[in-house]
Amino acid sequence: MEMNRQFLLMRRPQGRPVAEDFALAEAPLAPLAEGQFRIRNRFASLDPAIRGWLDDRPGYMPPVALGAPVRATTIGEVVESRHPAFAPGDWVLGLHAIETHSTGEPGGFTQRIDPGIVPSPTHFLSVLGAVGLTAWFGVTEILKPGPGDVLLVSGAAGAVGSLAGQIARHFGARAVGIAGGPEKCRRLRERYGFDAAIDHRGKSASALAGEVRAAAPEGVSLVFENVGGPALEAALLNLRDGARIALCGLISEYNAPEPEGARNLWQLIVHRATLRGFLVSEWLDRFPEGALRMAELVRSGALVFDEHVEEGIDRAYPAFMRLFDGTNEGKMILKL
Amino acid sequence: MEMNRQFLLMRRPQGRPVAEDFALAEAPLAPLAEGQFRIRNRFASLDPAIRGWLDDRPGYMPPVALGAPVRATTIGEVVESRHPAFAPGDWVLGLHAIETHSTGEPGGFTQRIDPGIVPSPTHFLSVLGAVGLTAWFGVTEILKPGPGDVLLVSGAAGAVGSLAGQIARHFGARAVGIAGGPEKCRRLRERYGFDAAIDHRGKSASALAGEVRAAAPEGVSLVFENVGGPALEAALLNLRDGARIALCGLISEYNAPEPEGARNLWQLIVHRATLRGFLVSEWLDRFPEGALRMAELVRSGALVFDEHVEEGIDRAYPAFMRLFDGTNEGKMILKL
Repeated sequence: MEMNRQFLLMRRPQGRPVAEDFALAEAPLAPLAEGQFRIRNRFASLDPAIRGWLDDRPGYMPPVALGAPVRATTIGEVVESRHPAFAPGDWVLGLHAIETHSTGEPGGFTQRIDPGIVPSPTHFLSVLGAVGLTAWFGVTEILKPGPGDVLLVSGAAGAVGSLAGQIARHFGARAVGIAGGPEKCRRLRERYGFDAAIDHRGKSASALAGEVRAAAPEGVSLVFENVGGPALEAALLNLRDGARIALCGLISEYNAPEPEGARNLWQLIVHRATLRGFLVSEWLDRFPEGALRMAELVRSGALVFDEHVEEGIDRAYPAFMRLFDGTNEGKMILKL
Repeated sequence: MEMNRQFLLMRRPQGRPVAEDFALAEAPLAPLAEGQFRIRNRFASLDPAIRGWLDDRPGYMPPVALGAPVRATTIGEVVESRHPAFAPGDWVLGLHAIETHSTGEPGGFTQRIDPGIVPSPTHFLSVLGAVGLTAWFGVTEILKPGPGDVLLVSGAAGAVGSLAGQIARHFGARAVGIAGGPEKCRRLRERYGFDAAIDHRGKSASALAGEVRAAAPEGVSLVFENVGGPALEAALLNLRDGARIALCGLISEYNAPEPEGARNLWQLIVHRATLRGFLVSEWLDRFPEGALRMAELVRSGALVFDEHVEEGIDRAYPAFMRLFDGTNEGKMILKL
């Protein structure tokens, strides 16, 4: 009898998640109700946002329940169906969970995809997925870069950050990236084409601000913020008048029991700057358009992106934690 | 021989200013150079922003030099002139200093005013001045309130805050104010017409957030932020999706050696909200239009405002400190 292997949340992490917060378990496959369909998940997208869903606090989605599999975007094949629009053999993408088998629901957000249009189906979880579209809409709808702009990206070697810098450069802006460690900085410059790279390791907010000033002596007009904390403080200390900041994430705070926030919001007043929080779901109805534009950029060679695929559901915890210790090299994907 | 009495900055305040940071002194009146004119200041506007100019840190204006009179907006009469556009007897308004006599410079920003159009010339420092225009442009250009909106104002009993709430109500929004103490809260409701008032005294950010929730159960769509710290945190915990925050000031931080900032910027992402720092100088070329609109609202009875006039330059320090201990009852003005 085939079983569903699942990566379960067993208790709410206190700060940084530890292995004991989770468990691997097997459950029998329940029979499908009318309108449901069964998906054999092949790949799961591991994203920093998952950390937020593990806490029992207000958010844009309900917290993952204790004892439930950890929520994640997955792609997989339909293997059994009682839904008229989904047939065995179809490939689908949806917000499911880290488990070998998920159940598609009638009226859910699972959508069919054609894996033949890209070299690897994993691209639907990276450059054509939420990660790529977050960079696309954040840059083109909030920042609107053009020649003369200087964009500062934090978490720049990450999946979203590396794409954000490249998209901005495609529209004529300079891109300065902040990342952790010399190897990532080298990758920013040599692989992703950033104009400058800054290593944040071991640096205070004011030291970091000095390095941003050296890389962008006339200040930064645009910021794509993924990190928060000292990175955001360093950005705030280098704003041009009228600067726009797209607030995409605050990864430095996700594991902090008491987030420190940004201590120099005063600079927003001084520079008449705008800090705009956003979620890619704002442009849900424009996802197909965004994916098309991103696919064009990929084909034209304007975008380079990396996928870091780790294999097996038993690697779920260490693969997820790579997002927080910074050892992933590209979009983190778990093969199931 | 007539002397210039001046309120001088003698050392940079460490946190909360103390009396010894300042000195009163007399200086002889220097002869005027070609193009200069002498102003006998009658009233000085005491504003929280002055505190920022006393520190030696980056800002939108150079710090007040040690030994120099403290910068302030004043109104007064021209008593002597070597400038063709200013004659003795003219009333003028400009960014001068807390002193009995200031010198107008050629090409400076001093402007003539007609004190006859308002009941008291002090109104040029309150409802028609930077304070009134800050409320006007912050509300009408950034927040754009209308029916269905709920505006949360911090520092709501202050000069800017009380006007911001009234302007938003004029355009059909509900206004909820946060102020310090039961007397100010009573004034918000009874005198300024706020729909609800919240006393922040002795309350944590989360307790304050609970009171905002009770006053605006469907969340706040607009925030006029004067205070920062727990007030801003409470606002962030009550945002509606797509909320707009006009960041006007951070008075809770001006005397803090290490500002604590806002620790829940995450809410900006969750609610796709915009935090926009602003300075009234952004609309410098529209000041006459703004003053006209404010004068109309005053005449129509839509705006109630208070001026707290303290008399004599020797009262400069205690009058200024009223802004920080909250004992002023309306726009703080020093009669010189």
